[in-house]
Amino acid sequence: MDKIYEVLERVRKESPLVHHITNWVTIYDCANIVKVFGGSPVMAHAPEEAAEMTSISASLVVNIGTLNNTSVEAMKTAIAAANKKGIPVILDAVGVGATKYRNEKIKELLEYKISVIKGNASEIASAAGISVTTKGVDSGNVSGDMVNIAKQFAYDKECVVVATGKEDICTDGESVYLVKNGTPMMSQVVGTGSMAASVIGTFCAVEKDYLFAAIAGLVCFEIAGENADKTSEGPGTFKNKLFDKISTLSDISINKMKRLEKIR
Amino acid sequence: MDKIYEVLERVRKESPLVHHITNWVTIYDCANIVKVFGGSPVMAHAPEEAAEMTSISASLVVNIGTLNNTSVEAMKTAIAAANKKGIPVILDAVGVGATKYRNEKIKELLEYKISVIKGNASEIASAAGISVTTKGVDSGNVSGDMVNIAKQFAYDKECVVVATGKEDICTDGESVYLVKNGTPMMSQVVGTGSMAASVIGTFCAVEKDYLFAAIAGLVCFEIAGENADKTSEGPGTFKNKLFDKISTLSDISINKMKRLEKIR
Amino acid sequence: MDKIYEVLERVRKESPLVHHITNWVTIYDCANIVKVFGGSPVMAHAPEEAAEMTSISASLVVNIGTLNNTSVEAMKTAIAAANKKGIPVILDAVGVGATKYRNEKIKELLEYKISVIKGNASEIASAAGISVTTKGVDSGNVSGDMVNIAKQFAYDKECVVVATGKEDICTDGESVYLVKNGTPMMSQVVGTGSMAASVIGTFCAVEKDYLFAAIAGLVCFEIAGENADKTSEGPGTFKNKLFDKISTLSDISINKMKRLEKIR
Repeated sequence: MDKIYEVLERVRKESPLVHHITNWVTIYDCANIVKVFGGSPVMAHAPEEAAEMTSISASLVVNIGTLNNTSVEAMKTAIAAANKKGIPVILDAVGVGATKYRNEKIKELLEYKISVIKGNASEIASAAGISVTTKGVDSGNVSGDMVNIAKQFAYDKECVVVATGKEDICTDGESVYLVKNGTPMMSQVVGTGSMAASVIGTFCAVEKDYLFAAIAGLVCFEIAGENADKTSEGPGTFKNKLFDKISTLSDISINKMKRLEKIR
Repeated sequence: MDKIYEVLERVRKESPLVHHITNWVTIYDCANIVKVFGGSPVMAHAPEEAAEMTSISASLVVNIGTLNNTSVEAMKTAIAAANKKGIPVILDAVGVGATKYRNEKIKELLEYKISVIKGNASEIASAAGISVTTKGVDSGNVSGDMVNIAKQFAYDKECVVVATGKEDICTDGESVYLVKNGTPMMSQVVGTGSMAASVIGTFCAVEKDYLFAAIAGLVCFEIAGENADKTSEGPGTFKNKLFDKISTLSDISINKMKRLEKIR
Repeated sequence: MDKIYEVLERVRKESPLVHHITNWVTIYDCANIVKVFGGSPVMAHAPEEAAEMTSISASLVVNIGTLNNTSVEAMKTAIAAANKKGIPVILDAVGVGATKYRNEKIKELLEYKISVIKGNASEIASAAGISVTTKGVDSGNVSGDMVNIAKQFAYDKECVVVATGKEDICTDGESVYLVKNGTPMMSQVVGTGSMAASVIGTFCAVEKDYLFAAIAGLVCFEIAGENADKTSEGPGTFKNKLFDKISTLSDISINKMKRLEKIR
């Protein structure tokens, strides 16, 4: 059995509860992608219950796309609960670099133990404290060697860093992998970025090797994207077929279609 | 004319205004399902206007999926306005049992006059004060006789109780019906649970017999689900076709496809 | 080259950053419609960053569909930043007339410089201070000459007013155009109204003649709606194909299909 498929199988069998404190734009997508992968999503952002909901969950996904003071407070209490319980925390650094407020808040969140930090190139660079030109939540230009930035950041924070792009850089600060699956259409609809973090959260819930879990999740998600793209007529139908194609992911298709390279 | 279809016809003709204070995950689905059924959805959660918006509405749907102190405050003022006006209030008990906070808040909301309480088995049992093992917002195991729990809860609260599942239990504390329509696919995408409550709210807006209104709404919604499932390729396309199939519900199809059993 | 298509081409080439403070029901649709048109959407509603996010944007869309005190505060700081930078501000007057709270808040927002005010007939009439019978967020009956109401309102506020309906009235207080594209299906799903404002915001981001930008955006959006309607099986598939058909808008199709009339 393909090792990636083996993790997917565990997701489908264990149906882990994946808690989210996420943004209002893609909150449905985050929930639904967990569901179609076979997991069980939950979204509870009230500071009064965020920690308790985390304590019955198998992983926590935090996405700062539409952060505010209250949601950041809920994120902190949830991350603390996740750290205490020893479950993985995935941080999606949406829009970091765009405003001082986001830069401050990500810094505060990074004081906690994070398992996987995910973002596009400019978000990861900004989160790592490297000056970049950002354009809202879409990827800006990043000068410097992105692989080295991600690797160093992962090393410093003792976590996995995922820098998404045409090829996704996945690193734990020592090894570096490139996930080369996916299709340009995935960046032409809103939601795929947030969903990628939720997928990583779902896979990390059942696989303690978070680097491999992140890679496995991305490979599965992006193969589904490739399959959806083949039969869609545009971004609208693509988005729906993306959900369809998660449920048909098989050992054979993953083994045949995965494009993964270890570069360090 | 089929009695269930007759209520649907009234929804389509009267196009009732259905006010929601609902959760951020499925808020679009809640609005759109009301719309495609022929109703007119509105969502106003600011405590400053929730009561006034309710006072021009034909029914109120309250869903605690992503509750917080402010939204619960808005729910209370809206429910009070609905009670005063004499319009139906549907309470979707999402995630009750998962956290102390939810358990407290549902208790506070149940101090008002509710017309229909809806939830999956574990949510209904928790709301009724019976101890269950819950897993986030997805249905947990419920020990004991669910039919009796729902019936007693409805009797105690003098309202209709709908406990969804493979078969939906609908009871006013005296009669008990099972709605047997639907398809497993409906529980494999996010949103169908919230939509069911919105559909009940839409049907209760035009039919004073809330037990029958709830049953009629569920039958229509789940027949559409069956029709959608027949031609969909997975959860993504299913979700869209579900909306399509609402608009094609006819007297003949409802009469032929409805699966309803009175068990008490 | 068709003049409308020429603006669309600029949207696709410049990919403007369009900032939104919008409602929770259609927030995904607002983001995705900007994206599929070729723009770059961003949604940041925290008062702490709304102004700064605006200052890196090319236009601002404000939608009061699910307003509250905090979001209105964020809107004000964002509009002030937009006014300072000289970028267009589009105000979608969702549900104005339905509650006193909305009426007060729209008044406060109208004290700022707005570039385009958009709403259905009853919303525009209410915003203009004319008494109407409103039904939630769906269009109520408007007595009086809607064209004159819109024209006078635009003249008084020195802005563009767009009153949507079967035919959309677009006026800068002097000229009045009717956009006659679109299909009844567009009003049978939730989201098209909010998306129309986001489209206008996207076109105004690249075209300083806001009246023409609003018209061009609506024509493109509604032609896509017509194309989607031709091949859809109901409101669910229609909604998805609407996104598909944005990306296939061409010089030829716009030139052939546009239905635009100057009536003043």
